Amino acid sequence: MSAQPVRLGIAGLGRLGRRHAENLARRVAGVELLAACSPIEDELRWANTHLGIAHCYRDYADLLRHPGLDAVFLVTPTTLHATQITQALAAGKHVFCEKPLSLDLGDCERVKQAAAQQPHLHVMIGFVRRFDASYRDAYTRITQGGIGTPFLVRAQTCDRLDPGGAFVQFAASSGGIFLDCSVHDIDLARWLLGAPRALRAFAIGTNAVYPKLREFGDVDNGLALCEFDGGKLACFYASRTMAHGHDTWTEVVGTSGKLVIGRDARPNQVETSDDSGTHFDVVQDFYARFADAFVAEAIAFIAAVRGEQSLPLTLADATEATRIGQALAQAQRERRIVDIVD
Amino acid sequence: MSAQPVRLGIAGLGRLGRRHAENLARRVAGVELLAACSPIEDELRWANTHLGIAHCYRDYADLLRHPGLDAVFLVTPTTLHATQITQALAAGKHVFCEKPLSLDLGDCERVKQAAAQQPHLHVMIGFVRRFDASYRDAYTRITQGGIGTPFLVRAQTCDRLDPGGAFVQFAASSGGIFLDCSVHDIDLARWLLGAPRALRAFAIGTNAVYPKLREFGDVDNGLALCEFDGGKLACFYASRTMAHGHDTWTEVVGTSGKLVIGRDARPNQVETSDDSGTHFDVVQDFYARFADAFVAEAIAFIAAVRGEQSLPLTLADATEATRIGQALAQAQRERRIVDIVD
Amino acid sequence: MSAQPVRLGIAGLGRLGRRHAENLARRVAGVELLAACSPIEDELRWANTHLGIAHCYRDYADLLRHPGLDAVFLVTPTTLHATQITQALAAGKHVFCEKPLSLDLGDCERVKQAAAQQPHLHVMIGFVRRFDASYRDAYTRITQGGIGTPFLVRAQTCDRLDPGGAFVQFAASSGGIFLDCSVHDIDLARWLLGAPRALRAFAIGTNAVYPKLREFGDVDNGLALCEFDGGKLACFYASRTMAHGHDTWTEVVGTSGKLVIGRDARPNQVETSDDSGTHFDVVQDFYARFADAFVAEAIAFIAAVRGEQSLPLTLADATEATRIGQALAQAQRERRIVDIVD
Amino acid sequence: MSAQPVRLGIAGLGRLGRRHAENLARRVAGVELLAACSPIEDELRWANTHLGIAHCYRDYADLLRHPGLDAVFLVTPTTLHATQITQALAAGKHVFCEKPLSLDLGDCERVKQAAAQQPHLHVMIGFVRRFDASYRDAYTRITQGGIGTPFLVRAQTCDRLDPGGAFVQFAASSGGIFLDCSVHDIDLARWLLGAPRALRAFAIGTNAVYPKLREFGDVDNGLALCEFDGGKLACFYASRTMAHGHDTWTEVVGTSGKLVIGRDARPNQVETSDDSGTHFDVVQDFYARFADAFVAEAIAFIAAVRGEQSLPLTLADATEATRIGQALAQAQRERRIVDIVD
Repeated sequence: MSAQPVRLGIAGLGRLGRRHAENLARRVAGVELLAACSPIEDELRWANTHLGIAHCYRDYADLLRHPGLDAVFLVTPTTLHATQITQALAAGKHVFCEKPLSLDLGDCERVKQAAAQQPHLHVMIGFVRRFDASYRDAYTRITQGGIGTPFLVRAQTCDRLDPGGAFVQFAASSGGIFLDCSVHDIDLARWLLGAPRALRAFAIGTNAVYPKLREFGDVDNGLALCEFDGGKLACFYASRTMAHGHDTWTEVVGTSGKLVIGRDARPNQVETSDDSGTHFDVVQDFYARFADAFVAEAIAFIAAVRGEQSLPLTLADATEATRIGQALAQAQRERRIVDIVD
Repeated sequence: MSAQPVRLGIAGLGRLGRRHAENLARRVAGVELLAACSPIEDELRWANTHLGIAHCYRDYADLLRHPGLDAVFLVTPTTLHATQITQALAAGKHVFCEKPLSLDLGDCERVKQAAAQQPHLHVMIGFVRRFDASYRDAYTRITQGGIGTPFLVRAQTCDRLDPGGAFVQFAASSGGIFLDCSVHDIDLARWLLGAPRALRAFAIGTNAVYPKLREFGDVDNGLALCEFDGGKLACFYASRTMAHGHDTWTEVVGTSGKLVIGRDARPNQVETSDDSGTHFDVVQDFYARFADAFVAEAIAFIAAVRGEQSLPLTLADATEATRIGQALAQAQRERRIVDIVD
Repeated sequence: MSAQPVRLGIAGLGRLGRRHAENLARRVAGVELLAACSPIEDELRWANTHLGIAHCYRDYADLLRHPGLDAVFLVTPTTLHATQITQALAAGKHVFCEKPLSLDLGDCERVKQAAAQQPHLHVMIGFVRRFDASYRDAYTRITQGGIGTPFLVRAQTCDRLDPGGAFVQFAASSGGIFLDCSVHDIDLARWLLGAPRALRAFAIGTNAVYPKLREFGDVDNGLALCEFDGGKLACFYASRTMAHGHDTWTEVVGTSGKLVIGRDARPNQVETSDDSGTHFDVVQDFYARFADAFVAEAIAFIAAVRGEQSLPLTLADATEATRIGQALAQAQRERRIVDIVD
Repeated sequence: MSAQPVRLGIAGLGRLGRRHAENLARRVAGVELLAACSPIEDELRWANTHLGIAHCYRDYADLLRHPGLDAVFLVTPTTLHATQITQALAAGKHVFCEKPLSLDLGDCERVKQAAAQQPHLHVMIGFVRRFDASYRDAYTRITQGGIGTPFLVRAQTCDRLDPGGAFVQFAASSGGIFLDCSVHDIDLARWLLGAPRALRAFAIGTNAVYPKLREFGDVDNGLALCEFDGGKLACFYASRTMAHGHDTWTEVVGTSGKLVIGRDARPNQVETSDDSGTHFDVVQDFYARFADAFVAEAIAFIAAVRGEQSLPLTLADATEATRIGQALAQAQRERRIVDIVD
């Protein structure tokens, strides 16, 4: 606690942005959240009233000009990520940015280059599952040889069905289910398999509940296979239509054992038995599942900015996740195998 | 298959009796079920038509006189057990008898004496759980030191709530919930703890759903504690009012580990998830839980009669189960600690 | 029990054949297993001594000539299935045959035609999982609308790792992992999705433990995707290398819920807790998982022969399973998408 | 955030005290932790360095004299609780105090009286499980009739075996296993059953691992029964010798269903399968199980001090827990049924 706190500004105060802001204000030590930026007046008022943030800006450029700011937290639309990261780097700020880095590989490369020119500045993309205690435990067990050589990952990101289908309005810009949902699983597969090079991908999908997604070439349930070099394999399942909750888990198979992470994640530890059997609830959304991981992620970023530890994931990792996600999306849309050149 | 089959008669063809008969006719090798006895014409007709049993008697004495019979299977009311076993022994037959041996300790002792005078005849009381694959596996692990020295058993026998309350009509003769339900748990506790001597007992109960049981001094939910020598302890829970099914399990705690047997027993391996969460069914009655154990029990008895292996439990075991069960019942009725003298 | 028993002969007394023979001799009513056929003297001796089968033949043609035989049970190598079924039909016998019908689609069609010409004879291929109590329960729930419209199946058949690798010697004739293991999952997917027409398939694989399989174009872990008409999808995983046991389960996703069948199948109901955590065992092979289903399957076949119920699966089902399995195998070997024309 | 923060001092900076202090400093809004008290210099230094607490006292009276303090947090030895609460009340401070209120019923009554004379001051004893999300969910379900009328609670508090047996040194002052461990379960049983009046108690115990506890009349495993009015029952199990971890759970049985809370609590969501089966870890101590509940408890106390909500438990509740715990301890030591007069 001896060093100066990291002075931080946050851009984007939507649902996830407000949660990041609350974590930074209350659950992360060594940081001072002193400025916020949003185009929406109500959100800024919330930041001021609820978190006591004195400096509120409607314009991102003004946020970057706020005196003494060390770093920015970007919880803005994906289409703005690349530009805003580059601007922040140009202004000499460390950057945390929500996933994905970008849906455009050219943008990814440009951000990598901009960051490479400022090696003293930290840039981290929020692949939050890497900071979940269960995934960290699994990673440790794997690197200690607990399952022999890992060679296969099965992972799924399945959202609860939204009867209103509000998410459909974002379909045009989401990049499709594989870039929106599976990108987490892609990152985990690469991490847990030791970052092998992706070779080719195939994917299929269906519109079981939301036919309107077809207009965007998108599906509400998708299955994908990906081959990596060294005989490593991955299988991804993404869905928008789970009736029971957010059902996200990962399996890693090795030559002498396997690990499963997060199966049947429950919101609490209550089980009820009545005349229709035994029941338990399932977490309803990604935030309920990964609330602690969002805090751990922010702590890790601040620690890196303070020079206490290195960043656990790089812009190259984020670029590969986009590269593979795009291949899956293309394979599903074009009904063909997509070779991945990197 | 070289030896002659054991020629067997069964007495009692109620619900459980018919299941024993079907097992003996179809799932147990080395036995010929050739005679049956029941006071109810329909039951005998079923035995003849359904199982092809040619010789049907309404009188137990006639069954015992059937030429060439080696052994009898008694699935008759508890009040008849002691007399019928003694009669069968006098007629030179091996005897399998459903639990409990008797609710009367004097009867238990008389049967023990009668059997002791005919050491070449086998008498086994059907404590079926000892033959369940899971309990056998647990027993093996314990005797191999898998949990260190076992010193505490918690066991429960909880029946599904019967909205009609048909079982209440048997309350006058059941001996109460501890002799009717917990007697299995008492036998398991003695078996899994290494047959220590019981010292004293205490029990409490309530009538949560069936107030009519009070007329018989009985309860629909009972909790009991029992102390054994050597610092060994047991806790029993018995219930008639489980909304979800037959919920029967056992925990054995040792100095270096513990075992749980049969928790959340399901009728099959299906789990459903829908908008009210994740669900699984629970077995609905003791027969669904222990169907295979009833077959294994009959196989073990026949093997003993054929001289292929010794009986896994004795009349002394059955007597101790009654002794402890009576102490629990007395403690609950009289609201006092009962010393168990044996 | 009034009708005559079905007089049955069995061909093939290897490990699985002996289990079928024991079931037929002891656990299936209404059948008389009176003849057996095997080229191996010891197996015939076992049938005679252990099961009391009087008529033992080394030659299949002699078995078919045994007087009064109603039906045959074929537990012979896959390469013999088509010929032996056709011969049995020509001899006027009902036929039960282990899966798969054949690895050759032409053979499948020829058997279908031969059977079509003898409509009074029953022919059933042993897709045993359809007779498992859990799969039957799931099927019933699905057909009753319990999960809405089913549209996606994920299924896996994963065998325990065999350190000796004995199975590799059968690789040349097994048809590869997708025809040997996934064929069950393919049949289940078709059954549970309502028998949609398969459109195209893709598959990938690796040799994580058994490099020698490469000589046969085979893999020890395979992942496959299959598209059906009506927007239905399936994903299959097959493995020879599970360290912990036989890990076989199926998930069916519908528009208003999902079902999981057989996850974490345990050999019994014991859980152990010690200083390394809480543990449970997993079934070690397919027979431990499906022992009761093998009995139910035989009962269903005998019931059909006795005219008591119709066959639950047809030769057309068996043919489709081979057709899809071959497409998966081809996709994996040739690294391309395979269109399935039927 | 508009109101003034509650100015708080903490007394006691042992292991649990430091965790309370960290929670108050970092995870609870609306509070300013500005003073600490401990007789141990190192602990005060930690408070200053690690949490930035400027005002550190070795003497409790000095803490109470610190200008402007609104409330104190007592994480001190149980023997000091009653006196320190009374002193704080006399100094006009709100008080949060770790459980139990006192092992002496007279002390409990004196504190109740002192508090009654200062009705504007809030006093809360830290029965932390009432603030656990799972217990709160269970409580809500029960009060909404989810299991009919609740009538039976089974609860256990079982600590991980400590090979060194460090806890034995506290045996002389702990009040025995029922007051030290089961007091939580007693409080939960009263809460979940609707605060019925306790009538009588019985308990037994053993020393399976720590014979030295006998010197203090204490046991390392204890089982207890308690009767309440209205036919309500409870069964408690407490242990110091669990090999696998902190195994604490609660079951509530009602007339139309039951709830289980916290069975098999795991530190994370990882399951491993290898050649010895499938494994998961168990939480190792009460803090791992209830870390979030400690935060929620502090938030609830601060909210009450700020007048935003009322206290969820009273000194009368804490007194009853001691009363019943003493009856259990007495029953175990004196081997008799203890009538509970309140």
